[in-house]
Amino acid sequence: MKIAVDAMGGDNAPQAVVEGVEAARDLYPDLEFDLYGDPSKVEPLINNSDRIRMIKTTEEISMGEEPVRAIRHKKDSSIVRAARAVKEGKADAFLSAGNTGAILAAGLFIVGRIKGIDRPGLTSILPITKPGAKRHNFVYLDSGANAESKEKNLVQYAYLGKFYAEQVLGVANPRIALLNNGAEEDKGDKFHKAVWQQLNALDDLNFIGNVESGDLLFGKADIIVSDGWTANAALKATEGTAKMIMSVLKDGILHGGLRAKLGYLLLHPVFHRIGQKMNTSTYGGAVLLGLKAPVVKTHGASDSVAVKSTISQIRTMLKTGVIEKTVEFFDPEAKVDKPTKNA
Amino acid sequence: MKIAVDAMGGDNAPQAVVEGVEAARDLYPDLEFDLYGDPSKVEPLINNSDRIRMIKTTEEISMGEEPVRAIRHKKDSSIVRAARAVKEGKADAFLSAGNTGAILAAGLFIVGRIKGIDRPGLTSILPITKPGAKRHNFVYLDSGANAESKEKNLVQYAYLGKFYAEQVLGVANPRIALLNNGAEEDKGDKFHKAVWQQLNALDDLNFIGNVESGDLLFGKADIIVSDGWTANAALKATEGTAKMIMSVLKDGILHGGLRAKLGYLLLHPVFHRIGQKMNTSTYGGAVLLGLKAPVVKTHGASDSVAVKSTISQIRTMLKTGVIEKTVEFFDPEAKVDKPTKNA
Repeated sequence: MKIAVDAMGGDNAPQAVVEGVEAARDLYPDLEFDLYGDPSKVEPLINNSDRIRMIKTTEEISMGEEPVRAIRHKKDSSIVRAARAVKEGKADAFLSAGNTGAILAAGLFIVGRIKGIDRPGLTSILPITKPGAKRHNFVYLDSGANAESKEKNLVQYAYLGKFYAEQVLGVANPRIALLNNGAEEDKGDKFHKAVWQQLNALDDLNFIGNVESGDLLFGKADIIVSDGWTANAALKATEGTAKMIMSVLKDGILHGGLRAKLGYLLLHPVFHRIGQKMNTSTYGGAVLLGLKAPVVKTHGASDSVAVKSTISQIRTMLKTGVIEKTVEFFDPEAKVDKPTKNA
Repeated sequence: MKIAVDAMGGDNAPQAVVEGVEAARDLYPDLEFDLYGDPSKVEPLINNSDRIRMIKTTEEISMGEEPVRAIRHKKDSSIVRAARAVKEGKADAFLSAGNTGAILAAGLFIVGRIKGIDRPGLTSILPITKPGAKRHNFVYLDSGANAESKEKNLVQYAYLGKFYAEQVLGVANPRIALLNNGAEEDKGDKFHKAVWQQLNALDDLNFIGNVESGDLLFGKADIIVSDGWTANAALKATEGTAKMIMSVLKDGILHGGLRAKLGYLLLHPVFHRIGQKMNTSTYGGAVLLGLKAPVVKTHGASDSVAVKSTISQIRTMLKTGVIEKTVEFFDPEAKVDKPTKNA
């Protein structure tokens, strides 16, 4: 199985990308990597080029660039070239920590949608932080690929999430919920009421009803589906609040004298465990589900551990054939390639 | 100035309501109160009936009831009677900790909209928790009165928020931001892009651009306007995350042995300050702005301190004449009653 890696994307690229790739390569003998980027910057960082091939690109898409325009014009950028390799069957999956919009656009316009999927959904694996919860993560989509959604998109997200939870996370008969502004059946605007009815009518989905944004991390469902707009607002608010509380705590400890500093030292194991629980980087990256191959975006601030975790996630997607199973469901007549064609 | 109080609404009613009213009465010699509710439950709780009048009602609207139906059918409920008193000029403002939907419906259908306002916006006063921030709270609307919004609603919210921030919070030339899914001008769906353009074109608004939901409590603006759907999702996610982190901390301390408990004791002043900062009850209740009188909903879980704080907020609204100034702006030809007519 070969992964096309954008070596130039992310705040810590190419260093963190190369380190993460080497760590994953050492861990998984069945993986090969093509690194797309500037050899003068990337090659000096590679310790051991076993199963790692450098592919030279001459352009870079920066974080602030308008995505669709960038994809059209920068044909020799690491993002476009890596996506094209997947499209052409030269690689099985695409990984980048770069410009999210550009990755989504490359996934959509170059790798391409599964037949029967109208819009892919950006899928985040989020932590369940409730003390004593049985599972420790859940599937959340569309976390922001689409600012505007139709009812059918959310129904498709439910299936995409179901296949992912079953195959990649190993959850049997996963519970699916709809992100809404109230728990009861009759809550929400016209759009969300209609989606509720559609999800509830489908016998092959284990639909358990609405979940509110305040309960996001409570583990009430294995999959939470939402329009991209609401899911993005709720996710950013969740991340922002967590960050804010941590910074307020830090500030209080910093200005709380010796007593507070001593208290912090004693509570350090507790803070550390919370930090680990909330740290989404160990859960892998965000997958653009609904495409013909795994296209995965890891956080722009990803370190080598996050890159390695994301590669591990991609490997599970490839080994379980989750994409092929999704294709078969939405388009039963499609001839499905085996995922290991480049192995 | 007379406040019509729903004595039966909220988890801690009537006890917390009566206690809060008595505390406010002792503090503010210029306030009178009409308590609407069941005298057999309320009267025994009143220590001193100075400037407090009991008005008997025979029905109650419970927390789970369908709001509009409840308002139509329960004519002798404390919510309907108190709202009607404001409509008929027998009181200057309406306060309740009860069923939010019923309070909104009573405000809209009984108290009535200001001419020129298409939809009132539920306005929350939220804390700015960023360490070192100059101001400690900001105005946030519509925090959930309307699941569906039009562009003009948000422009009206900007003015409603501006008057509130200027008059009640004493902020000169308040900075107004739009809640959106990105910071830059071109971010958002069609709706939010259009609102951005409209707000930006208005010379009498100090519009500073977009704010993302992850930055809600960072103090980037004095007023954040939003459609009710997005604002509600972001606010609930913020509250839910704060609650979750606190419960994870508590759990970690509980199971962290003597070391963690000692650490907690030493850090207690820091936790206490954070708790106070995040505790929205001291900022007053949520105001349904755009109505002809102050209609204020305090949290269902309000204690007597929250009730007292909300009364203090209502008093400031009445004394500053913020509603009258709003009326004059939207409908310059209206004859505006003085706020102290019942004083």
